[in-house]
Amino acid sequence: MNDSMEPLGARLAVGLVHHPVVNRSGNTVTSSVTSLDVHDLARVCRTYGVGGLYIVTPLEAQARLVERIIAHWTTGYGSRVNPERKEAMRNVKVVDTIEDMMDNFGLGMEGAAVMITSARPGPEVISYSEGRQLLERAPRAAVLFGTAHGLAGSALELATARLAPIPGMDDYNHLPVRSAASIILDRLLGRVD
Amino acid sequence: MNDSMEPLGARLAVGLVHHPVVNRSGNTVTSSVTSLDVHDLARVCRTYGVGGLYIVTPLEAQARLVERIIAHWTTGYGSRVNPERKEAMRNVKVVDTIEDMMDNFGLGMEGAAVMITSARPGPEVISYSEGRQLLERAPRAAVLFGTAHGLAGSALELATARLAPIPGMDDYNHLPVRSAASIILDRLLGRVD
Repeated sequence: MNDSMEPLGARLAVGLVHHPVVNRSGNTVTSSVTSLDVHDLARVCRTYGVGGLYIVTPLEAQARLVERIIAHWTTGYGSRVNPERKEAMRNVKVVDTIEDMMDNFGLGMEGAAVMITSARPGPEVISYSEGRQLLERAPRAAVLFGTAHGLAGSALELATARLAPIPGMDDYNHLPVRSAASIILDRLLGRVD
Repeated sequence: MNDSMEPLGARLAVGLVHHPVVNRSGNTVTSSVTSLDVHDLARVCRTYGVGGLYIVTPLEAQARLVERIIAHWTTGYGSRVNPERKEAMRNVKVVDTIEDMMDNFGLGMEGAAVMITSARPGPEVISYSEGRQLLERAPRAAVLFGTAHGLAGSALELATARLAPIPGMDDYNHLPVRSAASIILDRLLGRVD
């Protein structure tokens, strides 16, 4: 466990994006929220000391669902039976758009970095050690994860850097977003020998 | 992506262990199979070229359930609609015990390594770079992941090496086994800059 992990992670937000994403045919769509993704990502973000997990969905009913899940674990019955889950869940927010996430986390400030992973054309590809250096320099940073078959073009335009693809991600879509996010946060924040 | 990843991964088996594991109180129990764990681990193992994923459960009804899931995706309807999942699922086997897994994958041979992660007393703790060196040397190797609150004592006795805990694993059980397994396989097989 890296001693500098906590402060680095606190400057980083994770966005789980349900719009704009592409489907199998490459069309821009809005995907459904998978409640398990919210649970797993909340636990991974808590583990690595991430500053905030943003569930991005423009669908009102889906946003209400996620808010109910969060409330159950942070103030409802779940908070009394599972205090560890409470800690993980209280850092989760629901927003309509990636722009709302950026406003909320201060990602508009000078020097802020918005990282994505994508095999599609986009900003310059950087390695994970370059990603860590970026995190050390940037006052605020984010990593966006696209659900379905990945972020759509308009989301890629908001990115300032593209992390090198991890095996099985983007190319054949073999990895669940839960696994991909776990691996990428470990590479950025959990470096060990 | 490491060029030597394929051959290294092929010598490695992953065991998802439902018995013997411990519950929150530290008692040895048999946990239920979570079908999503099977799907996610199958995809992660396929991505990193792992030689076999073993679902270890002594419960007959649970074993039948996992076999039905595997059959659906490898020979049933699922195999026709999702060929990627077919590829991932055909490397999954169900076994009664860890010993059966070891027999099936040749883990009894001279020099074979059985790795675990655990905060409990057990064999010598090694780093992930030592784990990769072990994989390069060993004719066969395995990593065992305990569900519930981790592997019970009798499973630890089969281990020849203990990987350093990853943050949030073992200590507070913050990470789902799906995330922990993704991170550990990436550290062992997916090393990049």
